[in-house]
Amino acid sequence: MPDYQASALLMSIFFNKMNKRETADLTMAMVNSGDKIDLSSINGVKVDKHSTGGVGDKTSICLTPLVASLGVPVAKMSGRGLGHTGGTIDKLEAFDGFSVELSEETFINNSNTIGIALTGQTGNIAPADKKIYALRDVTATVDNMSLIASSIMSKKIASGADAIVLDVKVGDGAFMKTPEDAKALAREMVDIGTSVGRKTIGVISDMDQPLGYSIGNSLEVIEAIELLKGNGPKDLVELTLALGSYMLVCGNKASNFEEGKALLLENINNGKGLEKLKEFVKAQGGDASFVDDTSKFPKAKYIVPVKANESGIISKINAEAFGLIAMELGAGRETKESTIDLSVGIVLNKKRSEEVNEGDILAYIHSNDEYKAEKAKKDILNNIIISKSLDKDIPLIYDVVQ
Amino acid sequence: MPDYQASALLMSIFFNKMNKRETADLTMAMVNSGDKIDLSSINGVKVDKHSTGGVGDKTSICLTPLVASLGVPVAKMSGRGLGHTGGTIDKLEAFDGFSVELSEETFINNSNTIGIALTGQTGNIAPADKKIYALRDVTATVDNMSLIASSIMSKKIASGADAIVLDVKVGDGAFMKTPEDAKALAREMVDIGTSVGRKTIGVISDMDQPLGYSIGNSLEVIEAIELLKGNGPKDLVELTLALGSYMLVCGNKASNFEEGKALLLENINNGKGLEKLKEFVKAQGGDASFVDDTSKFPKAKYIVPVKANESGIISKINAEAFGLIAMELGAGRETKESTIDLSVGIVLNKKRSEEVNEGDILAYIHSNDEYKAEKAKKDILNNIIISKSLDKDIPLIYDVVQ
Repeated sequence: MPDYQASALLMSIFFNKMNKRETADLTMAMVNSGDKIDLSSINGVKVDKHSTGGVGDKTSICLTPLVASLGVPVAKMSGRGLGHTGGTIDKLEAFDGFSVELSEETFINNSNTIGIALTGQTGNIAPADKKIYALRDVTATVDNMSLIASSIMSKKIASGADAIVLDVKVGDGAFMKTPEDAKALAREMVDIGTSVGRKTIGVISDMDQPLGYSIGNSLEVIEAIELLKGNGPKDLVELTLALGSYMLVCGNKASNFEEGKALLLENINNGKGLEKLKEFVKAQGGDASFVDDTSKFPKAKYIVPVKANESGIISKINAEAFGLIAMELGAGRETKESTIDLSVGIVLNKKRSEEVNEGDILAYIHSNDEYKAEKAKKDILNNIIISKSLDKDIPLIYDVVQ
Repeated sequence: MPDYQASALLMSIFFNKMNKRETADLTMAMVNSGDKIDLSSINGVKVDKHSTGGVGDKTSICLTPLVASLGVPVAKMSGRGLGHTGGTIDKLEAFDGFSVELSEETFINNSNTIGIALTGQTGNIAPADKKIYALRDVTATVDNMSLIASSIMSKKIASGADAIVLDVKVGDGAFMKTPEDAKALAREMVDIGTSVGRKTIGVISDMDQPLGYSIGNSLEVIEAIELLKGNGPKDLVELTLALGSYMLVCGNKASNFEEGKALLLENINNGKGLEKLKEFVKAQGGDASFVDDTSKFPKAKYIVPVKANESGIISKINAEAFGLIAMELGAGRETKESTIDLSVGIVLNKKRSEEVNEGDILAYIHSNDEYKAEKAKKDILNNIIISKSLDKDIPLIYDVVQ
């Protein structure tokens, strides 16, 4: 099919939408355009988790060992970060020696023995999706729910999981700006998964402020470790428990959401989740002692506090802006070719709806460059809005689609 | 602009339509993509005539000398036939020696001295239209009024005429199947012409049966000559007078339609139209004595009558089918590479709404191949529908858009 017909088809889809059947058919055509990963030699129901991308989203790092510690195998492909969102692989590389370049044999073995393995995207997964995405990019047809849904789902389905739990982000820092859009996207993805025999659940979660307090690779890994030690920030805990419970339900390890949540909390409290993280890091060549002593992670030269210029209540923390500020500090990639600095980033000291007094510390900048820190300070102050009152409270989890 | 963006744009136009401004802008972009013919050295208002294509449509051959004989210069580019419709150039080549390969100088000179010159499409006229048409063909976006209108008008405008009279055909043998569609197309074309400063008039005429009685190159030229001798068939006369009157109005030689018609009739009756045709044929290297002695035109070996199998009233003569039957006899081109036989074709003996008795001659087949004539006989009988009564009478001219 020549590009000029593919682009005409995309424009036709853009204006006429696709129905469920058409969306599923396109998705499977993309799946079948390349390699399909066979996870059948891994015992149990393989459950994948996918986030549509957010700022400060380190959920995978605490969630996957926690779920694995409860006997649901996690055999996951993950990606690197680009632009204002980070990538799980980049973050895990903050562990000295950690590698995602596993042979297929090691990947399968680790999944069967310790119950968790993570690899970078390997092989030729859904090459038609790449071509179609490139055409959408140059024909103004990116913004179509069915095309977005089929693009994500084609890669997940080709990656071989039996079930998929989706974290669909909504807000300023996400691709979906309204809960309605996020729900519609979740609905399309769940319909695709279900129609091709993969149990799929979509959780719609807030990305109108960064998730947790930390943004930046080492900083986010430390926060994820703290969660497994029982010291996680409220929102990150809530999201981890929600996504994890659905993963346990999909993996037949919990009969319902509440049971799943209790199991997860138990394995936080008894340290089994933390142990699983150590096993996982070690199995992939990383230095697991970082888990016990997080001061071993790469550290930035300067830690610069950012103080409030006024008193009031924090009504908004612009998630996308924080992602970009962290990127400019070196935590993220401006282009695919950029190298990242694992040590830098931002640690928030206050979050939305908290009261502040003039002079209170709003955040700490972790930087290896004083000039960049100075610039980040201004940017941070411009992107934390302090008001006299709070308009409305935003939930962390808007809805669940299944 | 790469093909994949052009095709996405076409699909977008297909679904969203274009407004007047957009249609005119696209048309002018196509005009400006290639050569623009400069007719300014020809005196007077240059009026072009264009037909959207029909079967048995020899109007240009009688119309243009007639209009030229009244002082409106005709400096026209014309095309060859393809598929079920014939082309004016092919037909005129039935005159021994007639050539459309004129130098620009001769073209201009003839236009100024005898008032009429005809050339094949020369130079690089609207190359963007060719590219766009090729993309429309492979992306299922041919059937859009604005794109059809802009394609036709880009070539007409680039060809340099000051005013354009359009003959928009409607019916089975035409691209537009309903009067509503034909009117919409005429409206789009007139709007384009008007918005770029070319006076444009669209006449919507019937193509639900062949025009006149003859189909095939020599046969059609003879019928056109007969018209200029005062012996034209009713429908061909009516259409020639209508289109000619509007051309005279556009060329400021008649103040209204009725005056134009009277002038045309006068120049049929006094033989000035016929004289102009002779001058025209001679000026382009053709043997003008064919006009006086039409038996000189190429003649087919066999003339086979087709007789009615039943009595009744002719309710339909399938125009497109007759175009294709004539093409199969050799009168038309199946592909651009086909060569045509100037002598062959069909001469109808009866037309729609005429009564016939079993055994009456419906048509004569002119063929150089007995087998082909036999096949044509069956096809003709299948495509002349004889009924007990006539449903409705179809007008020759439906409407005029200006």
